[in-house]
Amino acid sequence: MSKEMILEKIAQAVNILNEKNIDMWLIFVRESSNIKDPSMDIVVGTNCTWPSAFIITKSGDTIAILGSLDVPNMQMQGTYQNIIGYVKSINEPLVTTLQKYKPNKIAINFSRDSNIADGLTHGMYLELVDQLKDTEYINRLISSEEIISALRGRKSPAELELMKTAIKETLRIFDDVTNFMKPGMTEQEVASFVKNLVKERSLGLAWEKDYCPSVFSGPDTAGAHAGPTNRVIQPGHVLNIDFGVNYKGYCSDLQRTWYILRENEDAPPAEVLRGFNIIKESIQLSAKELKPGKLGCEIDDVARKYITSNGYEEYPHALGHQIGRMAHDGGGLLSPRWERYGDLPFKTIEENQVYTIEPRLPVKNYGIATIEEEVVVTKDGCEFLSSPQENIFLIKSS
Amino acid sequence: MSKEMILEKIAQAVNILNEKNIDMWLIFVRESSNIKDPSMDIVVGTNCTWPSAFIITKSGDTIAILGSLDVPNMQMQGTYQNIIGYVKSINEPLVTTLQKYKPNKIAINFSRDSNIADGLTHGMYLELVDQLKDTEYINRLISSEEIISALRGRKSPAELELMKTAIKETLRIFDDVTNFMKPGMTEQEVASFVKNLVKERSLGLAWEKDYCPSVFSGPDTAGAHAGPTNRVIQPGHVLNIDFGVNYKGYCSDLQRTWYILRENEDAPPAEVLRGFNIIKESIQLSAKELKPGKLGCEIDDVARKYITSNGYEEYPHALGHQIGRMAHDGGGLLSPRWERYGDLPFKTIEENQVYTIEPRLPVKNYGIATIEEEVVVTKDGCEFLSSPQENIFLIKSS
Repeated sequence: MSKEMILEKIAQAVNILNEKNIDMWLIFVRESSNIKDPSMDIVVGTNCTWPSAFIITKSGDTIAILGSLDVPNMQMQGTYQNIIGYVKSINEPLVTTLQKYKPNKIAINFSRDSNIADGLTHGMYLELVDQLKDTEYINRLISSEEIISALRGRKSPAELELMKTAIKETLRIFDDVTNFMKPGMTEQEVASFVKNLVKERSLGLAWEKDYCPSVFSGPDTAGAHAGPTNRVIQPGHVLNIDFGVNYKGYCSDLQRTWYILRENEDAPPAEVLRGFNIIKESIQLSAKELKPGKLGCEIDDVARKYITSNGYEEYPHALGHQIGRMAHDGGGLLSPRWERYGDLPFKTIEENQVYTIEPRLPVKNYGIATIEEEVVVTKDGCEFLSSPQENIFLIKSS
Repeated sequence: MSKEMILEKIAQAVNILNEKNIDMWLIFVRESSNIKDPSMDIVVGTNCTWPSAFIITKSGDTIAILGSLDVPNMQMQGTYQNIIGYVKSINEPLVTTLQKYKPNKIAINFSRDSNIADGLTHGMYLELVDQLKDTEYINRLISSEEIISALRGRKSPAELELMKTAIKETLRIFDDVTNFMKPGMTEQEVASFVKNLVKERSLGLAWEKDYCPSVFSGPDTAGAHAGPTNRVIQPGHVLNIDFGVNYKGYCSDLQRTWYILRENEDAPPAEVLRGFNIIKESIQLSAKELKPGKLGCEIDDVARKYITSNGYEEYPHALGHQIGRMAHDGGGLLSPRWERYGDLPFKTIEENQVYTIEPRLPVKNYGIATIEEEVVVTKDGCEFLSSPQENIFLIKSS
């Protein structure tokens, strides 16, 4: 992220601290190239070696306390006003800084429910508690989850522009796939074609290369989050691709569905069309309900009920997630009230958040129908960032 | 890491569990593309989305418990014998698995002192404790630090071969730098030259690209862990480069020192030679003491005392660190007894560990003399993996 974007995010963080009435946000980390707190990219912009504290105060001050050898690098970043180096122990500069600001609430980087706000390792938590054990601040530690959820969730106009480009590039690659793909190819061949385009166009992948893209052809596919296999694409297959790019640090995450026509077909069988349309309609119905003030689980309800009331099994995952610098970003989810999602289904939807909407259903004997769109939340609703898939894409047999 | 190397590392982990009499090693993680436990690369080989447990038992069993959509991908990796998927909550399969093995000691992935063993986030720790709260296993959790330190520290012959190649490629690039570098160039130009060679030779960088390589020319340089600047390399400068490559997942980390001759010089001034030689000698003296059974701080003592007893200031960092899949790898350090290093200076040196040795000293008005070598610990001593720098490299003025 550029220095300017980091300074913009720090300014946004200061506003959020004031809005939530939290005095200080403290990110406590070490060896961040080895294990990286997701907040480092957004409000720091570089890595550190020894135990380090990156502090943003409600009053707008920024203080970095680092091992002395990390100081010059931090100075060159130009993102923090006050940079304090230490040689033997972080204790004195850390405690002195807290005493200067006397914060009543110190938000630290852990969260039960949101991985994106959970960059504090347990060992470093024990270390921090030990550093503060003789001070009153030990009892003033809270989770920074609500700061981070707001900061990552509420996209600035500049962030939205980058995300729109990532989406445009992804849809362009899907069009290229439609022209390229033929029955007889394997899932892996299609994935290689996609990866070559990503490289040619100097894009990055939105997630792990093993399953970005994922390509699923026909019935009995591997299922979501699996890599493409050497399964051969055949006439009569419903095929879907789950794929996203990283454009200048911002990700897309989209899915499209194709049907491979049989020799004598001009159009997919009725049951394929029906499944595809149910998915398409469930996306429109849930998007209509998606607006500030609603809870994520209420949006999941809409699509889930529409799909099951039409006789299909429910999708075994959330309807959607936030997206940004990572494919799975932000806090709240559009998810069912299942224990594995913790309290994330119960978060309130806010303006300028970007969500995916991605229901799925199996069409018996054909494959999986699934579409994934991206929407941005507006003042009183949401807008599609991706041009929604209206019709199943058709591949001719010969 | 290849499937074969992961299986080799898992087998090594089972041996370590038996050696340390620990019944079970449990890695508890989620969304590991967003924040990655360093052990995932070594004994799992892929990422997971939802809360997941990767379990290795003393009896040699491997069990992965994951969100159901992650199961096919895990099956395709082929690294775990038992793969259990869940839809709504990890609780039942996790508790059932513990009840099956009835472990007395369960090592989990946190550590106060070793970042490499501290991949459990605090939020996930709270989650795990909550999952186990109604079982007897809640009181049987210990740190996996000693397992991970041994596993990452003790290099197999295959790992050592890859590390030797990484070192050879690094030294070759240093030779290329000697032929390329001229006074009048900036630190950044030299760094670009190095980065181009890395790219041409299909290597990776051993750490963050902002300061790999670091290039420091002359007095008043930015200091360690800073990126190269637009400072101009001038006659009379002592210059050093800190650089490493990543070769097939294994890193090197080496430093070399150059002197830029003035118009009328054939050799560096006496004080430059003296500083260089003190560094060179301190490396040989400390390497002589480096052997299984010694503590890391005892080795740091040797170099630190030699340098200060010769009238130079002490280096503000550790003498050396372990290296492997990351530039800063393993547990124990060759470091002074400073609080910031926790208990890492007090770890016992073991056979097949690879350490850097990297003292430094400032030569007043000229720059920093520093050499970094890599050694592997043998049965009764250590061997240099890098061919040690014998003489300061000279750059002619014209």
